Amino acid sequence: MATERTAEETAKQVADYMLTHDRASRHLGIKIDSVDEGVAVLSMTVRDDMLNGLDILHGGFTFSLADSAFAFACNSRNRKTVALNCTINFVAAAKVGDVLTATAREVSLSGRTGVYDVSVKNQNGEIVAEFRGTSYGTSSSVL
Amino acid sequence: MATERTAEETAKQVADYMLTHDRASRHLGIKIDSVDEGVAVLSMTVRDDMLNGLDILHGGFTFSLADSAFAFACNSRNRKTVALNCTINFVAAAKVGDVLTATAREVSLSGRTGVYDVSVKNQNGEIVAEFRGTSYGTSSSVL
Amino acid sequence: MATERTAEETAKQVADYMLTHDRASRHLGIKIDSVDEGVAVLSMTVRDDMLNGLDILHGGFTFSLADSAFAFACNSRNRKTVALNCTINFVAAAKVGDVLTATAREVSLSGRTGVYDVSVKNQNGEIVAEFRGTSYGTSSSVL
Amino acid sequence: MATERTAEETAKQVADYMLTHDRASRHLGIKIDSVDEGVAVLSMTVRDDMLNGLDILHGGFTFSLADSAFAFACNSRNRKTVALNCTINFVAAAKVGDVLTATAREVSLSGRTGVYDVSVKNQNGEIVAEFRGTSYGTSSSVL
Repeated sequence: MATERTAEETAKQVADYMLTHDRASRHLGIKIDSVDEGVAVLSMTVRDDMLNGLDILHGGFTFSLADSAFAFACNSRNRKTVALNCTINFVAAAKVGDVLTATAREVSLSGRTGVYDVSVKNQNGEIVAEFRGTSYGTSSSVL
Repeated sequence: MATERTAEETAKQVADYMLTHDRASRHLGIKIDSVDEGVAVLSMTVRDDMLNGLDILHGGFTFSLADSAFAFACNSRNRKTVALNCTINFVAAAKVGDVLTATAREVSLSGRTGVYDVSVKNQNGEIVAEFRGTSYGTSSSVL
Repeated sequence: MATERTAEETAKQVADYMLTHDRASRHLGIKIDSVDEGVAVLSMTVRDDMLNGLDILHGGFTFSLADSAFAFACNSRNRKTVALNCTINFVAAAKVGDVLTATAREVSLSGRTGVYDVSVKNQNGEIVAEFRGTSYGTSSSVL
Repeated sequence: MATERTAEETAKQVADYMLTHDRASRHLGIKIDSVDEGVAVLSMTVRDDMLNGLDILHGGFTFSLADSAFAFACNSRNRKTVALNCTINFVAAAKVGDVLTATAREVSLSGRTGVYDVSVKNQNGEIVAEFRGTSYGTSSSVL
């Protein structure tokens, strides 16, 4: 009897596979809170070695968290998908010890290209950054 | 007799100060190649712990290098300046051992807001990413 | 007894004032469906003189509708506010006769700068474009 | 004896074809100054019916000019190519009677996707807006 994976199970398997091989995200302490078809929620705690000269989180690390959430969301159907471009708006500063959560959702997917919005918030629910990514699906699968 | 700093000297002092306090950029091994008024050239070698699940440089680290170059360029007049938003186009993958150079230049500066372009290239002069940042100048100085 | 304007009344007065003076939006046949604090809903019917060489709506006119909705939303508190930059993702083509609706909402507003998302849909509720604008509030009022 | 079109001749034929069929660009009075492989220079005079409520050029019309230049540049090889997304930074206001010139150049082209920068300047050479477009090449030709 065949076992079929649900969309959510596929998304979880892909995310686990990706994080296992993604040294950068692991190095940043990024954790998967939840994933499903077209969505991903990741979290990261701001460390001292992520701060810039103003003692706030370097924008590149805010971007990294959002970009990982984008990657997990747009690969969730097990189609290997890459980022074409991304835009990030920095709304509020993050400080050491803050726990940031990035919630990625699929805004549109048509043909090979998709649009994903990622909202990054701190432990008080305040917006830290808003990210929008445009993806391109290759002909390969992730798993 | 008073000594006056030239624009280039100011840019260098600001960049040195910023990098000294910027644990994130130092953690990434980012080096200052040159800075001047409105411009900054930084470099970074791709390490194993910067790779994603596809064995290529995680987009967040490409962004981090470009974002640091943007920060050094837009703060080069010793006016504390922050990023409002940034867009990055990923053009080619970077691999472990690649030496990336980010060259930031001021496209426009009018009133409090500025536009900066950063081109990220590898050791063969191939474009890895194109970044555009919009800055906002505060009323404080950096030094 | 003093009459106070509610936030919605202010938003309406500002929008009426802006549209009256905005020859470009009127020229495009843009209509105000509703406005309130931080939000604006505008609509436009695609005309033959808005088509490009592929017989679909020129991207500049999709952008114009979204940009007007952005302007009405970010000026809704009667503070004269301008666009710093905007990003638009084109998701689906629009054809002659289509009725497009642009819904703008405030994602964040802190200090002088704000972020607004505008979704442009056709009469069937399909996404035509997603737009994100970054605003800068001046010290003047609109009215 | 076969006649071969040079890259520049192809770019010109494509641009002429596109403008002939592009009612929107003609409606805006857009003119082709020059085109070549990967580049396009277009101009437009700001008319009264293009002004917004602040008596300056509506951002949508600045965008339209830049977007047309982007389209002519990215279709210049006679491969039908569409815009995935575009970012525009508004740098200075344009007034009625101003003659704007949009210069588009190819920053990168790899596989199906490309990056194009368009600089919009007025008759005094001052930057009005900076635009960056990401393109996607279809399998069809233009001519």
